[in-house]
Amino acid sequence: MSTTQTERHLAFVLRGVHDTIIEERPIPRLRNEWDVRVRIEQTGICGSDVHYWDHGRIGDFILTSPIILGHESSGTIVEVGPAVKNVKVGDRVAIEPGVPCRHCILSCDYCRKGSYNLCPDTVFAATPPHDGTLSKYFVVAADFCFPIPAHLDMEQAALVEPVSSAVQMVRTGDVRGNQTVVVFGCGPMGVLCQAICRAWGCKRVIGIDIVQSRLDFAASFSGGSPDDVFMPPKKPAGEDQMAWSEHVAQVIKDQFNLGEGPDVVLEVTGAEPCIQTGVHLCKKGGTFVQAGMGTENVNFPISVVCVREIRVQGSIRYQTGCHPTAVDLVSSGKLDVKKLITHRYKFEQSEEAFQKVKAREEGTLKVMIEGVRD
Amino acid sequence: MSTTQTERHLAFVLRGVHDTIIEERPIPRLRNEWDVRVRIEQTGICGSDVHYWDHGRIGDFILTSPIILGHESSGTIVEVGPAVKNVKVGDRVAIEPGVPCRHCILSCDYCRKGSYNLCPDTVFAATPPHDGTLSKYFVVAADFCFPIPAHLDMEQAALVEPVSSAVQMVRTGDVRGNQTVVVFGCGPMGVLCQAICRAWGCKRVIGIDIVQSRLDFAASFSGGSPDDVFMPPKKPAGEDQMAWSEHVAQVIKDQFNLGEGPDVVLEVTGAEPCIQTGVHLCKKGGTFVQAGMGTENVNFPISVVCVREIRVQGSIRYQTGCHPTAVDLVSSGKLDVKKLITHRYKFEQSEEAFQKVKAREEGTLKVMIEGVRD
Amino acid sequence: MSTTQTERHLAFVLRGVHDTIIEERPIPRLRNEWDVRVRIEQTGICGSDVHYWDHGRIGDFILTSPIILGHESSGTIVEVGPAVKNVKVGDRVAIEPGVPCRHCILSCDYCRKGSYNLCPDTVFAATPPHDGTLSKYFVVAADFCFPIPAHLDMEQAALVEPVSSAVQMVRTGDVRGNQTVVVFGCGPMGVLCQAICRAWGCKRVIGIDIVQSRLDFAASFSGGSPDDVFMPPKKPAGEDQMAWSEHVAQVIKDQFNLGEGPDVVLEVTGAEPCIQTGVHLCKKGGTFVQAGMGTENVNFPISVVCVREIRVQGSIRYQTGCHPTAVDLVSSGKLDVKKLITHRYKFEQSEEAFQKVKAREEGTLKVMIEGVRD
Amino acid sequence: MSTTQTERHLAFVLRGVHDTIIEERPIPRLRNEWDVRVRIEQTGICGSDVHYWDHGRIGDFILTSPIILGHESSGTIVEVGPAVKNVKVGDRVAIEPGVPCRHCILSCDYCRKGSYNLCPDTVFAATPPHDGTLSKYFVVAADFCFPIPAHLDMEQAALVEPVSSAVQMVRTGDVRGNQTVVVFGCGPMGVLCQAICRAWGCKRVIGIDIVQSRLDFAASFSGGSPDDVFMPPKKPAGEDQMAWSEHVAQVIKDQFNLGEGPDVVLEVTGAEPCIQTGVHLCKKGGTFVQAGMGTENVNFPISVVCVREIRVQGSIRYQTGCHPTAVDLVSSGKLDVKKLITHRYKFEQSEEAFQKVKAREEGTLKVMIEGVRD
Repeated sequence: MSTTQTERHLAFVLRGVHDTIIEERPIPRLRNEWDVRVRIEQTGICGSDVHYWDHGRIGDFILTSPIILGHESSGTIVEVGPAVKNVKVGDRVAIEPGVPCRHCILSCDYCRKGSYNLCPDTVFAATPPHDGTLSKYFVVAADFCFPIPAHLDMEQAALVEPVSSAVQMVRTGDVRGNQTVVVFGCGPMGVLCQAICRAWGCKRVIGIDIVQSRLDFAASFSGGSPDDVFMPPKKPAGEDQMAWSEHVAQVIKDQFNLGEGPDVVLEVTGAEPCIQTGVHLCKKGGTFVQAGMGTENVNFPISVVCVREIRVQGSIRYQTGCHPTAVDLVSSGKLDVKKLITHRYKFEQSEEAFQKVKAREEGTLKVMIEGVRD
Repeated sequence: MSTTQTERHLAFVLRGVHDTIIEERPIPRLRNEWDVRVRIEQTGICGSDVHYWDHGRIGDFILTSPIILGHESSGTIVEVGPAVKNVKVGDRVAIEPGVPCRHCILSCDYCRKGSYNLCPDTVFAATPPHDGTLSKYFVVAADFCFPIPAHLDMEQAALVEPVSSAVQMVRTGDVRGNQTVVVFGCGPMGVLCQAICRAWGCKRVIGIDIVQSRLDFAASFSGGSPDDVFMPPKKPAGEDQMAWSEHVAQVIKDQFNLGEGPDVVLEVTGAEPCIQTGVHLCKKGGTFVQAGMGTENVNFPISVVCVREIRVQGSIRYQTGCHPTAVDLVSSGKLDVKKLITHRYKFEQSEEAFQKVKAREEGTLKVMIEGVRD
Repeated sequence: MSTTQTERHLAFVLRGVHDTIIEERPIPRLRNEWDVRVRIEQTGICGSDVHYWDHGRIGDFILTSPIILGHESSGTIVEVGPAVKNVKVGDRVAIEPGVPCRHCILSCDYCRKGSYNLCPDTVFAATPPHDGTLSKYFVVAADFCFPIPAHLDMEQAALVEPVSSAVQMVRTGDVRGNQTVVVFGCGPMGVLCQAICRAWGCKRVIGIDIVQSRLDFAASFSGGSPDDVFMPPKKPAGEDQMAWSEHVAQVIKDQFNLGEGPDVVLEVTGAEPCIQTGVHLCKKGGTFVQAGMGTENVNFPISVVCVREIRVQGSIRYQTGCHPTAVDLVSSGKLDVKKLITHRYKFEQSEEAFQKVKAREEGTLKVMIEGVRD
Repeated sequence: MSTTQTERHLAFVLRGVHDTIIEERPIPRLRNEWDVRVRIEQTGICGSDVHYWDHGRIGDFILTSPIILGHESSGTIVEVGPAVKNVKVGDRVAIEPGVPCRHCILSCDYCRKGSYNLCPDTVFAATPPHDGTLSKYFVVAADFCFPIPAHLDMEQAALVEPVSSAVQMVRTGDVRGNQTVVVFGCGPMGVLCQAICRAWGCKRVIGIDIVQSRLDFAASFSGGSPDDVFMPPKKPAGEDQMAWSEHVAQVIKDQFNLGEGPDVVLEVTGAEPCIQTGVHLCKKGGTFVQAGMGTENVNFPISVVCVREIRVQGSIRYQTGCHPTAVDLVSSGKLDVKKLITHRYKFEQSEEAFQKVKAREEGTLKVMIEGVRD
């Protein structure tokens, strides 16, 4: 089933800040022999989607012409290029939404050496100027589609994407069996990281957040426990932020008997107090992963990094194996991702779905948008 | 300058064992927007080229239809695809002769994770069924062409290829500044490995061979010294091979004051006695790199590997950065690759060149074939 | 409670091949301020203990004067040196039986760089000329004693030692979450390795053995399954061993849908066919760990190692963190080590216990000897 | 030659801020069988020595009772404990001045796992409450003494200590052959790092400083070149510091044709603008080593670390192999450390020597103090 130049489908398009429309657009065509076309079935909304809707930009990525939103999607293969071997029409797949250049067009080596998440020419869904997945159809490279087993539904398949991000965070932290890990953040990404660390044999995994309902959720999600979550005490007015962060780190060490500190800290919030506390918490020779994007520049305890020989490592998107691993984690039941879903919307309600995420109400975790109905 | 379907060029073609012909063939066309066409200027002959000529196969790669030989080549860009940005017509380049699939056609992940040297779908020059470079023109992916500086000639550029293999061997050995390395083999690959280890700050680099002229060459090549080469004593008739190998390892340790042994052993010969001696030589916790291809199965001291926690690591072809590094090593003068060249042939003499390599006469190192003259 | 020069205790002493005696010996005294004395409670018998009893030597370690046997032991601290801080009298501990020199007496750096398992001056229990643990008391460095929680009994504590060896094997293999691992051997060490890989989130863990009862045990031990064990077909008479090993590797890949092969192979048997099959089984870029000690030299597919860039890595004893990790694995219930115990003997029956292990009857797994009763 | 309780020697003692005295003290005795006594011959002064003299503390290390200063020293062995095998009386040695506990007294594992530089119980010379080396004799563990070859003098031997620190910085950066490295700081530590990177085959090594005479020195030291040093432009008044740092990073990339940035940044100054510029300079997937100690907390571009997946790694003191490597680097002539010495003092002039360093005059690099004369 290939498409003609004139066929059109519905898409949820961002034209400017808070300016969206559901409109007809030409159905995209396969660009080369390795591409496939997917009929989108389910899409989760991510903070970055909402950020573009709310601000029209993230860092250097600026909305200058309308783009289709959405990038956490699952769907069914409806067309395959002639070179495609890994999937066939009818396959139900999870989509990895960023496809790197593979050809080192700018003479960089990121794709060739396996760090394709760093490729500057990546076509990433819903990152200007590239269209996202919130339309009837989406065209993507075949090897960025991952078939899911029959017992998974399309919501679970859509949630493979955030699970894959969490896999990359945990891999960046080089987390090993029997280690102790502290995760700052108990939103969807934070609890997924915690669950993966548990699934991979960590001895102790602790979740930190400042919202009680999120801590409660973390305590109940895929191996979590009320004994393994913590709300940091509130900084008294006038107290120095860094001194307070160091104090909180000690409180956490004491409460959880962490001795010199955890082996690995995963920082998923991007908030300055969490970053500071996380570095002070980390044991000598330990690893601190910065995965959350928030404040651009922070007051940072660099001398602690130096004298303790801490490894501070950034994590962004996903690398080879993250999506397949995420499919396996969801398929095996080790991650019960359905529990993350708190709200479901029809495609026509996409704008409402974005407002729901934007509202940041307690109890809102993952918001899903169904694909276009015929 | 693009080509028509009907233009033809000269090529040195292997039709069967010892059955070659120089014949006209259609000039290959760019296969996609990232390809370039190179006019070949110089080609070195490698043992594998001669092996196909001599046996019609290497392992599972079997000559079933005629192929053009040659893969160590330099040339000048004469045509570029529309997406090419890293080179332009007129550029003088060293060619990396194996281009991986990049698209995980068989659902393997080698290309995506940066181990493209393991991609089973690699199009490798002069490996059946793929044509090599011994023709007037050669078509290859643009990002597998590496511009060379003006002060290098095309012979040096052609020799970037074996240097790149040596870079991969040294990198596989994870060789570091101030380490001690023993290299088994003082042919072109062996002396290149030795020179790279020296250029990268090794404390001591020792070359082993059983041919005196090769040892003499190693002693004079790019930082070599007569104090750093060694000819192993000949095994007495009736002596057990493994016991003798262990003995020779001790002789080497004693003669060069290596204590518990070198940090790294690079085995470039593929010969069983060298493999055995190399493992017995390696210090506890050390690294033994198997880079030479020879006997398929060998009697191997596996218990030594176990009790000494030795890392035995295979090395094959090249990965990201090997060719650029090789260009830098040759450009900087750290590797005087011209000294490797012992014989030069015109394109019409290609068969003679192959016979020269096959003869394995003392004093023959690298044999070069000039490109097709107009 | 310190001892006088004249106090004596009972010990199970090996005087020569199959020549043992239970006799009174002087109670060992603390050698320095960091030592402790442990009253031995339980001891497991290991193949190496039996090998000394049966042959009087293992490799270069030769029995030249009587030694006390035994090294897999637990006990209670009865005396501590003045510098000891990590344990106190009355603590129930698992013992790490090899204490390295720490002082680089022979100017090696193994201890200082953390590879203390390679220290040539290690005092290892029951390795000539050092006494083992099969006596009433045993003196060892305090930091090689690991307190166990109250809910573990002393049999479980004694079995921390083989678990620790298995931890080292798995760590040497750099086994990660979601990987596929094949373990050759379903004796105690093999099933422990399999269980640890499962506890640490491996996607698939397969056990290979040629004894059905061992496969049955593997299928039932700590997460094992009948779907994850395999008995290789028997080599037909006259068939080439290496060709058969390659064939068996393909049979395993096919039966378990392993595609290009497992990420990691752990070879725990030391048997040539297993080593050959394991290397042929390993995927490109994969890891093969040689942990089993058996045939000293084997016919080895070195060219496969080369062209597939396989990492072959020896594993011996344990490094930092293995014993604490083993304590955690047993304490958490992830490894049900009690199921390994098939026979129990009183101290006076030590000789019988050795004969039981030596008999290699089907159904014999771990044989325990109780400590000396007052 | 052992000492009696009553023999005394001269020592340069810090009693409080700017309060020093040369006084007689009991000659220290060997503490155990692995100790040696060294007659000190030469001592370099380090910034940390001066900092204690100037402030009475560094971080948590506070002078509460008098200590002998000095830790960069060479000397001659005059007494050895009975277990010592690596040195003998009369040996001329470089001293590694920090000896870890080795026995995990506090139940930490740093010593056992090879990260002895992180051991909290390290006895580090001239770090309160431990005495330093500025006395006639110094007692230290034998395996922390490294014999030097005959052609080195005792000044060179004393400078092995800062070279060893630089080796650790370069090793922490995992610097490899053919990489590009930028070093912030052209004082003694900075130029040593630059020289080591060159000796180990880096393609390009650039030194940054704000003092012209230091840049001039860097340009002339052990392989340096005027083309490889850079003075950053001065921040205009009112300009935001972070924006300026980002600008300077781009200026450096442009001036040195660094493309996306260097592979490794070594930050040896501890100054906030250098830290900020260094992070902005680092290429995606690159490494930033924080080795300089300066401002405790800095405004830090954490989002750059995140989106570029930069590895930020602290470096402190030295690990196994640093001192031997430093001896080799100095012995081989690859590092001409004598050129670092700008001032020499007799032991009696120790106070003057400290004032000279404290003055921070242009042209002052390394200041040496001779050992006590009889």
